[in-house]
Amino acid sequence: MASPCRVNIEGLHNVMELSKQYNLRVFVPSTIGAFGPDSPRNPTPNLTIQRPRTIYGVSKVHAELLGEYYHHRFGLDFRCLRFPGVISADTMPGGGTTDYAVQVFHDAIDGREFECYLRPTTRLPMMYIDDCLRSLWEMLVAPEEKLKRRTYNVTAMSFSPEEIVAAVRKHFPDLKATYKPDSRQNIADTWPEIFDDNEARWDWGWQHHYDLEAMCEIMFSLLQQQQKMESVSGR
Amino acid sequence: MASPCRVNIEGLHNVMELSKQYNLRVFVPSTIGAFGPDSPRNPTPNLTIQRPRTIYGVSKVHAELLGEYYHHRFGLDFRCLRFPGVISADTMPGGGTTDYAVQVFHDAIDGREFECYLRPTTRLPMMYIDDCLRSLWEMLVAPEEKLKRRTYNVTAMSFSPEEIVAAVRKHFPDLKATYKPDSRQNIADTWPEIFDDNEARWDWGWQHHYDLEAMCEIMFSLLQQQQKMESVSGR
Repeated sequence: MASPCRVNIEGLHNVMELSKQYNLRVFVPSTIGAFGPDSPRNPTPNLTIQRPRTIYGVSKVHAELLGEYYHHRFGLDFRCLRFPGVISADTMPGGGTTDYAVQVFHDAIDGREFECYLRPTTRLPMMYIDDCLRSLWEMLVAPEEKLKRRTYNVTAMSFSPEEIVAAVRKHFPDLKATYKPDSRQNIADTWPEIFDDNEARWDWGWQHHYDLEAMCEIMFSLLQQQQKMESVSGR
Repeated sequence: MASPCRVNIEGLHNVMELSKQYNLRVFVPSTIGAFGPDSPRNPTPNLTIQRPRTIYGVSKVHAELLGEYYHHRFGLDFRCLRFPGVISADTMPGGGTTDYAVQVFHDAIDGREFECYLRPTTRLPMMYIDDCLRSLWEMLVAPEEKLKRRTYNVTAMSFSPEEIVAAVRKHFPDLKATYKPDSRQNIADTWPEIFDDNEARWDWGWQHHYDLEAMCEIMFSLLQQQQKMESVSGR
């Protein structure tokens, strides 16, 4: 087994066992990647079939189930949120399946062509980082009796590459976009399109603040601020 | 984490990785215990929600998903059957949730009262050992193109304690039975009642040979034979 999986799974086992012994609370982030081609995609309910086809997804399903086991068996206060693609201005995009939605902002602001590794119509659930962190906080402070389960879907919006390109063009009308699907397309094709987080909304009052338009505004505002500071500091 | 889980999960990771490197075929037995209270119980389909609440079940779901990952990602010939309670005359019953269905034969033949740790109406899927081994063999030799998935439910019958007691009384009319549900009742209450193995029947022709009546006959025939040999050998 590749070393990242060892770390993920054996590390998780150590965390759970120590948390049980020392009566700690445990939060584990899960992901839309914990679903797969057998899961309903539009919408993807909180409770459904999960047979992911990536090792990332397999290790996340294991984390969900092991945490719930420790909760039911030993009373461990385990909580878990399944996050969609998370968008922020703080870090540069990595190579993940949803990272094109960060890349597009950097390309627009730097005047580069945006080359997308997904097809223009590939719809995926997303949320802005502030919503992500607030959902985490709100779930962690939710009183025990409001939690009907230990693992919840949360999201804010769903869009496709062509939709975010259109939204970005309201700020940068000259942005050029090309689409060259790579292996990440196959992964995205097995992930949720619309992520049903109604249980989080009903049970502990989850509400997102940022839709696509609001997210574009704050992203450009933050990135332009960063750009100014970099040019002042001569970097 | 308790040591059995470490062995189960880390051992599995080692087996998968070696099987990939040496191009071996891998069979992993799974179980009705890989389902839980959120799974449909009557019937339990091949493809459905799996959130088991025992560590046994959690490790089996992980085995199913990791094996399927190695299959889809690396072409590993991984095959997996989910077995119900398996009944045989070869070994004494352990403390498992379905082992009452072996115990009852020994109690009947030895003239003891049968004390059952499940309620009389608790229905669980079961199969006789010969069917179990034959299903394993037949799935292993099934041509690749017949397998629409890598993990199949297999079963032969479903019965409750009061039903097997009635069947046993056809051979031993004086058998007394009492019911004292213990913690295994809680486990059984989250497991499949009727196990839907139609996909195995359609895809690679699975058929059971032993129903409840046929199983009682062979069990008593084998156990009485054993008893005779033991009395001859003076044990």
